[in-house]
Amino acid sequence: MKTTEKLDRLRAEMKKRNIDAYVIPTDDFHGSEYVGDYFKCREYISGFTGSAGTLVVTKDSAALWTDGRYFLQAADQLKESTIDLMKMGEKDVPEIPEYISGKLPKRAKVGFDGRTVMEGFAEKLINAADGKSVRLCGDEDLAGIIWEDRPELSKKPVWEVPLEVSGKSRAEKLSRVREKMKEAKADMIVISALEEIAWLLNLRGGDVESTPVFLSYMVIGDQEARLFAAKEIFSAKIRKELAADGIKIMAYTGVERYLKSCSEGKTIWADGSSVNWRLMNCMKKAERIIKKADPVKQMKAVKNEAEREGMIDAHVKDGVAVTRFMYWLKKNVGRVRMTELGAAEKLHEFRAEQEGFLEDSFTTIMGYGPHGAIVHYSATKESDAEIFAKGLLLIDSGGHYINGTTDITRTVVCGELTDEEKRGFTLVLKGHLNLQSAVFKYGCGGEALDILARQPLWDERMDYNHGTGHGVGFILSVHEGPQRIHWNAALNGKTAIEDGMVISDEPGLYIEGKFGVRHENLILCETDVENEFGKFMHFKALTMVPIDKAGIDMSLMSKTDVERLNAYHKQVWNALSPYLEGDEKEWLKEATSPLKKR
Amino acid sequence: MKTTEKLDRLRAEMKKRNIDAYVIPTDDFHGSEYVGDYFKCREYISGFTGSAGTLVVTKDSAALWTDGRYFLQAADQLKESTIDLMKMGEKDVPEIPEYISGKLPKRAKVGFDGRTVMEGFAEKLINAADGKSVRLCGDEDLAGIIWEDRPELSKKPVWEVPLEVSGKSRAEKLSRVREKMKEAKADMIVISALEEIAWLLNLRGGDVESTPVFLSYMVIGDQEARLFAAKEIFSAKIRKELAADGIKIMAYTGVERYLKSCSEGKTIWADGSSVNWRLMNCMKKAERIIKKADPVKQMKAVKNEAEREGMIDAHVKDGVAVTRFMYWLKKNVGRVRMTELGAAEKLHEFRAEQEGFLEDSFTTIMGYGPHGAIVHYSATKESDAEIFAKGLLLIDSGGHYINGTTDITRTVVCGELTDEEKRGFTLVLKGHLNLQSAVFKYGCGGEALDILARQPLWDERMDYNHGTGHGVGFILSVHEGPQRIHWNAALNGKTAIEDGMVISDEPGLYIEGKFGVRHENLILCETDVENEFGKFMHFKALTMVPIDKAGIDMSLMSKTDVERLNAYHKQVWNALSPYLEGDEKEWLKEATSPLKKR
Repeated sequence: MKTTEKLDRLRAEMKKRNIDAYVIPTDDFHGSEYVGDYFKCREYISGFTGSAGTLVVTKDSAALWTDGRYFLQAADQLKESTIDLMKMGEKDVPEIPEYISGKLPKRAKVGFDGRTVMEGFAEKLINAADGKSVRLCGDEDLAGIIWEDRPELSKKPVWEVPLEVSGKSRAEKLSRVREKMKEAKADMIVISALEEIAWLLNLRGGDVESTPVFLSYMVIGDQEARLFAAKEIFSAKIRKELAADGIKIMAYTGVERYLKSCSEGKTIWADGSSVNWRLMNCMKKAERIIKKADPVKQMKAVKNEAEREGMIDAHVKDGVAVTRFMYWLKKNVGRVRMTELGAAEKLHEFRAEQEGFLEDSFTTIMGYGPHGAIVHYSATKESDAEIFAKGLLLIDSGGHYINGTTDITRTVVCGELTDEEKRGFTLVLKGHLNLQSAVFKYGCGGEALDILARQPLWDERMDYNHGTGHGVGFILSVHEGPQRIHWNAALNGKTAIEDGMVISDEPGLYIEGKFGVRHENLILCETDVENEFGKFMHFKALTMVPIDKAGIDMSLMSKTDVERLNAYHKQVWNALSPYLEGDEKEWLKEATSPLKKR
Repeated sequence: MKTTEKLDRLRAEMKKRNIDAYVIPTDDFHGSEYVGDYFKCREYISGFTGSAGTLVVTKDSAALWTDGRYFLQAADQLKESTIDLMKMGEKDVPEIPEYISGKLPKRAKVGFDGRTVMEGFAEKLINAADGKSVRLCGDEDLAGIIWEDRPELSKKPVWEVPLEVSGKSRAEKLSRVREKMKEAKADMIVISALEEIAWLLNLRGGDVESTPVFLSYMVIGDQEARLFAAKEIFSAKIRKELAADGIKIMAYTGVERYLKSCSEGKTIWADGSSVNWRLMNCMKKAERIIKKADPVKQMKAVKNEAEREGMIDAHVKDGVAVTRFMYWLKKNVGRVRMTELGAAEKLHEFRAEQEGFLEDSFTTIMGYGPHGAIVHYSATKESDAEIFAKGLLLIDSGGHYINGTTDITRTVVCGELTDEEKRGFTLVLKGHLNLQSAVFKYGCGGEALDILARQPLWDERMDYNHGTGHGVGFILSVHEGPQRIHWNAALNGKTAIEDGMVISDEPGLYIEGKFGVRHENLILCETDVENEFGKFMHFKALTMVPIDKAGIDMSLMSKTDVERLNAYHKQVWNALSPYLEGDEKEWLKEATSPLKKR
C-alpha cells in the first residue's frame, strides 16, 4: 500500500469519528526513548523510517516533524507522500500545537492514541488552541485499524539479575518505594517507565532494542503490588518469586480497567513524564494525583555498591574490547580497505568476545571525516564511507554486560591531521579532562559543572550543540535521568549530582563538512572529603581506553592538562594490561605512556 | 523601660486580642534590605540592635532568631531579657514556623503586623502548623502601641535623576511596564519595592540609610498611575512633572483602602516577594492575582547606555578615592597609629572629596587580621582593632555617586604574611580573575558561572560560605536581583545574565581566628560575538583599583593568571593615572606594573 493510500484510509476513519486532525507520535505506551516494532505506526503510515518524528494528518494536509539528523532522509522518504516535511528548530517552522491550532476551526476534534501521548503534550495542544475550545479524543488507535500486517506486541522472555549483581533485593527496593509513598501521603503509585519497573524488580527483558526491558506497568499499594504484563514472559520460578514478594501478575492490557476500578477517593502518585494520557484519564475519580517525578527514577540513578562494582568490571571488559579495536584500526587503516559499517561490525565482534557481553547498548556511531560532524550520524549502506589513512574517525558506542552498561566515544587519528583538526581535538580534550577532574561542593547540579568542559572552547568562541553529560542506566537505557550536565540543566528544577550517580563526560566540536571530535568517558560521582568547609565530591573515571595522543597539539596543553591525561592513562594501563598480550599489550603501553610538557 | 517590661506590655496587648504568639520581623512595609528607624520595632522590644533578626513572643516564652554574624552581640544584648537566642543555621535550632507550631495549641491565633510580613512567610506558618488549623491575624501593630517615643515615618525630600543620567524618561519606562502588563493580561500592577519605584520614576529619596529611596507604593493601570507617598516630599516642579506623566499622588497610608476599592474583578500583578501580606489581602476580590516577579525588577537590572556610562565614570572616581586610601594606608601602617574605625573614616573622607559623591552605599567592612574572617564584620567601639605592619586588612566598601553606585573589596597586605595567608590570597585571586575573564554562551545564569571563581579553592578542598556575585542597583540598593552568581542560584528559577547587567565578582576565604581574604570587582556583562556557534557574552571590569601584588604566591599563578592580572592592572593604570599626581601616581605605577611569570 502506498503512503497516499494509507493517508486516505486514515482520513476515512477520521471522518467516521468527526476527527479533524490526527496525531501519530513515535512513542510507545511508556514514553520510552526507543520503541519496539509494534509501536512504529508513524513509520508505517508515513514511510519515514527515522527514530524520531511526529505525523499530523488533517482533512486536507499532512505534515511530519523531525529533527536535524533526519532532514535529508525524511525529505527523500516523503517525496511521493504528499506529507510536508517540518524541519524542527528551523526558522518559521511552527511547533505542532501551533500548526494544529492554525489549521482547525473552533471546537475542532483532535484525535490520537492516548497511550502514546504523555499528558504534557495534550496540555500544550489545549493551550495553543487558546479560545478555540479544541476537544481531545485519545480513545482510538486509528493507525492500528489500517495497519494490516502489524507485528505482534513483543513478548520476549524475562531474565533475573542475581542479588550479587543487583545489590538490593526486590523486597528492599519495594519497601523503599513504600517509604517514599508514605512521606508523600500516597495510597498508590503507578510506575509506567519500563526501565524503572525492570530495575525495581531485578528483572530484564528483550522487548525493546538496546534496552533490556519488558512491556509492563506496575501499580503499587501499601501492602500489595500489581504487575501488568504478559504472563508467559515469566518463568515459573520468577512467577513464584514475584508472588512471594506480594506482586500479582495481571494482563498487560488490564491496567486501564484496574486503575478505573480502584482509584476512587485515593491519592495516587503518577509521574506525568512517563504515565500516558489515557492512563491519567483512568484516575479521574482519584482524590488527588501527585504528578511529580516518581521515587524510582532517583533510586535507580544512585548506584549501590554492587552496581558500582559491576559497572567498574564491565568497563574493564569493554575497555579491553575497544582498545583491541583501536589497535586493529590503527594497524590496518590505509593498508586494508575498511568502511564505517565494516569497522562498526569489527568493533561489535571485539565486544562480543568479552565474557558477559549481552548486546550493544545503542547503534554505534562510526563517523569518518565530515560524517564525524553529524552528531547523531548512523552509517547506512548508502552513506557508508571508506576510511583512509588521514583525518579523524569519531566512534561512539557501548555495550550491555551482565553486570553493567558502557558508553564511550573516542576520536581516532587515522593519519595526517590539519592544524584545525588538532586544535579542535585538543580543546575538546582539555574540557573533557577538566570536568573529569572536578572537585565540587555537595549539592551542585550539572548546570554548575558544565562550564568546566566548555570553557576551553568558549574562550575560542566555539561550542557544541548538545549536553555535556547524561546519566546511564544499569543494564537499562544508556540514557537516564534525572541528572544531566548542561548549563541549562536546572531549567525545570535542580538535581544534585549524588554519590553513586554515573554520568557521561562528552564535550565535542563539529565543523560541518570537515570533521567531528568528541571525547567521552563515563564517570562515577563519589564523596571526596568532608571538612570545616563542607562536603566535597569528585568523579572517578569508569571508562578505560586510551585517548589518541596523536591528535594533541602540545602548545595548547597546560601543565595541569598534561598531568591529568598522564594520570588517566596510568589508570588505563593498570586496568587493562593484565588482559592483553603481545602486540596489543605493547601498543597499549605506548598509547598510555606519559606525555612530557616542555 | 526594660525589655522584660516591654514584653509584659506586649503580652497584655496579645491577651486582649486572644493572640497566642506574636511575630516581629525586621522588615519595613516593602521587604527592603535596610529599614528606616520607624520600622525598628524588633530592636525596640528586644534590645538587640543587629540589622537582621525576628522576635517571637508567646504567653510564656520569647525567642529571637538571628544569623552567625550576630551570635555574640545578640547573646550579650539579650542577657537580661528572658529572650532565648536562636542561632540560625546551627544544629537543632528549629525554624520559626516549626517553633511556633510546636508551642501552640490547636486553632491558636498567631499575630503580626501584616505590613512587615511577606506572603511566603505566612504560608510557611500555615504549612508548619499542619493539622493544627492555626489562624493568622495581621491587622495590628502591637509593638507600635507600646512604643512610646517611636520616631516619625521618614519624609526626606525627593530629588530627580536627570534624563542624561537615567537614560530613559519616566514616560518611556511606564510604557514598557504597560507593554509587559498587556502581555501578562494584567489590568493593574502593584509595585511595592522602593528601589523599583525610584528607578521607574527617575526619582531618589532619603528615607532609608545607604539606599536613596523614598517610602511609597505604586499602582499602575492601563491609562493612569497612582503613587502613594507623603505629598510634602515632592517639590512643586516634580509634582507637576508627575502629573504630566499621568501619575496621581495619594497619601502613603491610603494604598490599602484604594486597593480594596478598585481590585474587584480585576487581574492584578503583585509580586509576592515585595508586596506585603496585608496588601495582598486587600485584593481578595480580584479576579486573579499574578504573583510572579514584576517586570520592573528585570528592567532596572539591565542597565541602559546612559546608566552604563554613569557606572563607568563613577567607578573611576571611586577608584581614585580607594587608590589614594590604599597609598595612605601602605605609607602609614606601622608608622602612625591606626584602627579599623579610623581607617574606615579616612576612606570615607577620600570618597567624600570626589566630585558627585553622595553617600556610602553601605557600612564599610574594615576587618583586620582575625576580624577579616567574620564575613559581615562591622567594627564597633568595643571591637575596634589597631592595625599593625603585618597580616591582611580586608576592606569592603562602596559609594553612591550622582551617576552610579560602587562596591569594592580589596585585601591589603599590611606587612609580613604567613605562607597560609599568601596561599589563600592567591587562590582567591585566581578564581576572581577566572570569573572576570569568563566568555560564555548567551542564556547562562549565575549558577553556570560560579565554579569559575570557586575551582581553585575547591581543588584544595576549601570554600567560602556566601554567593560569588550579586546585582548592583543604579544609585539604589547595592544588592539587587534577579541575577546572582552561586552554584545554587537556579534553585527557584533560572535568570540569564543579560547584556547590561552589573554583578559583583567576589570570592573569598575565611580562616577563623586568623584572617580573611576577599577580592571584589563589579563587572558589566556585554555581548562578545555572535558566530556559527551562537552568541557569546563576556564581562568588562568596572572597578578600577589595583590588587595588592604583595599578597601573591607566584608559584600558584599560571601563565594565564599572570596575563589576566597584568591586563587588568593596565586598565587600572590607564583609567586612574590622569587623576593622580606625585607620590600617589608613582605608587599607582608600581602597583599596576606587570608581574613576570618565571
